[in-house]
Amino acid sequence: MPVRIVQSKNNARLKELRKAFVRPGRDTRGLVAVEGPHLLEEALRAGLRIATVFLRSNGRGDLGYEPRVGEDVEILLVDPDLFDDVVQTETPQPVAALVEMPDWTWAHILRQAESWPPLLIVLAGLQDPGNLGTILRSAEAFKSTGIISLPGTVNEWNPKVVRSSAGSIFRLPLIHAMPEECFTMLREAGARVLSTSVSNATPIHGANLTGPVAFLIGNEGAGVPAEIAKQADSAVTIPCPGPVESLNAAVAAGVLLYETFRQRDTLVMREAELRGSSR
Amino acid sequence: MPVRIVQSKNNARLKELRKAFVRPGRDTRGLVAVEGPHLLEEALRAGLRIATVFLRSNGRGDLGYEPRVGEDVEILLVDPDLFDDVVQTETPQPVAALVEMPDWTWAHILRQAESWPPLLIVLAGLQDPGNLGTILRSAEAFKSTGIISLPGTVNEWNPKVVRSSAGSIFRLPLIHAMPEECFTMLREAGARVLSTSVSNATPIHGANLTGPVAFLIGNEGAGVPAEIAKQADSAVTIPCPGPVESLNAAVAAGVLLYETFRQRDTLVMREAELRGSSR
Repeated sequence: MPVRIVQSKNNARLKELRKAFVRPGRDTRGLVAVEGPHLLEEALRAGLRIATVFLRSNGRGDLGYEPRVGEDVEILLVDPDLFDDVVQTETPQPVAALVEMPDWTWAHILRQAESWPPLLIVLAGLQDPGNLGTILRSAEAFKSTGIISLPGTVNEWNPKVVRSSAGSIFRLPLIHAMPEECFTMLREAGARVLSTSVSNATPIHGANLTGPVAFLIGNEGAGVPAEIAKQADSAVTIPCPGPVESLNAAVAAGVLLYETFRQRDTLVMREAELRGSSR
Repeated sequence: MPVRIVQSKNNARLKELRKAFVRPGRDTRGLVAVEGPHLLEEALRAGLRIATVFLRSNGRGDLGYEPRVGEDVEILLVDPDLFDDVVQTETPQPVAALVEMPDWTWAHILRQAESWPPLLIVLAGLQDPGNLGTILRSAEAFKSTGIISLPGTVNEWNPKVVRSSAGSIFRLPLIHAMPEECFTMLREAGARVLSTSVSNATPIHGANLTGPVAFLIGNEGAGVPAEIAKQADSAVTIPCPGPVESLNAAVAAGVLLYETFRQRDTLVMREAELRGSSR
């Protein structure tokens, strides 16, 4: 494994890594930055192309961490001070990497499987990176077919999003769209677009979520913007009997996804029972 | 409203506030620190006694923020540099306060309402303050009757917990207990203790959650410690069809609470239907 040693902060790759951390996905040839062995391995598992691996030199001459990447991947050994300055993580990491963003399309987002119609999340102004990462993780867990990010939503390659997604960001289809394109595509796919509201709406356990469905998730404070919400087919609410204004956005998304899975799973079980009893 | 001006970092109350932020609830006469007008108002709404209010001096001679507290509450106007040094918040706040902790007992936790049996969360080693705050918020939203914190769990008066609980920390009964006491009390109350597991357990939508129930929530990485989990009556799992190891702890707790509410609500509706049809 050929390794180049980097001791200057003016190194072009190091500059690229810094840029990728600060403004992910822009001016960096479609490359995004990941930090730590766990996330690098998740990116590799997802089959993403690794452009450059940055190892934090431990001063002992060995590599400290052996990345399992192909022969063609550029590996740089970086002075610890330079490394820490660029990878501004809370817990020190021995490795960082520049990774090629996955290239998702509407076809991925709207794919239809037997007894599993599209289950989508439309992000309309969500701001907290921890919330977005957690939503991506839940979305993958409950078999969401994809995420649509509308303008005004936090960048999904923000390092905090990547971290809290626990690798789901590398595997779950996510595309950016303008509201008009988004609603046109969702209508064409026959998806019901459901806005989430804190009141005056159908409780989710009373709504039928077994068909193609897209949930609008809004800003943490202000909710779904009115001009977006009015384009939804209807509004649903998560019933909260307690004296609380609203749920955390990531918890709300988790509950919507779970309830959709529960309904679809119950339907499948009932159909199996019916087939059994009609024999 | 008599206001005292504080310009020394050796002021006894200011020292107490600092201590309350760093080691909440210890050596501070049962007082905890809150920051910001929103949380102070939530504490007031919950009927908690406010010991001292600290206003950040804006240097213009006026109070900047008028706390709506009783005549007997001590109010200090603090030099901005001193204030910021003690209240180490991300967004600058005009006010902080020392608040008397609510005094919860097992009787609060285990209170029984008609058609709403105890719904409890037992925290067994949860570490992330944001997760705990979010769980408290969801617990109040879905009418949990209370929280039991076992040793090894993050302090619930950690400023990040208080912030992300959005005020629920002031209203929701929470007690500390040793595992033995906890399980004895839960058994006496007739509560089913359910451990949460990622596999080999009943899916929650197949478990009956309509009776008294207590969910064990473990550490973010390691889950529920084995010696605690083995004392549970049985294990449940949140069905995750996707290729994800686990859900975020706060999302998992939210889904457990939601599913319990859904089952109880469905039962109440069915009973009402039965009563209607038998007339």
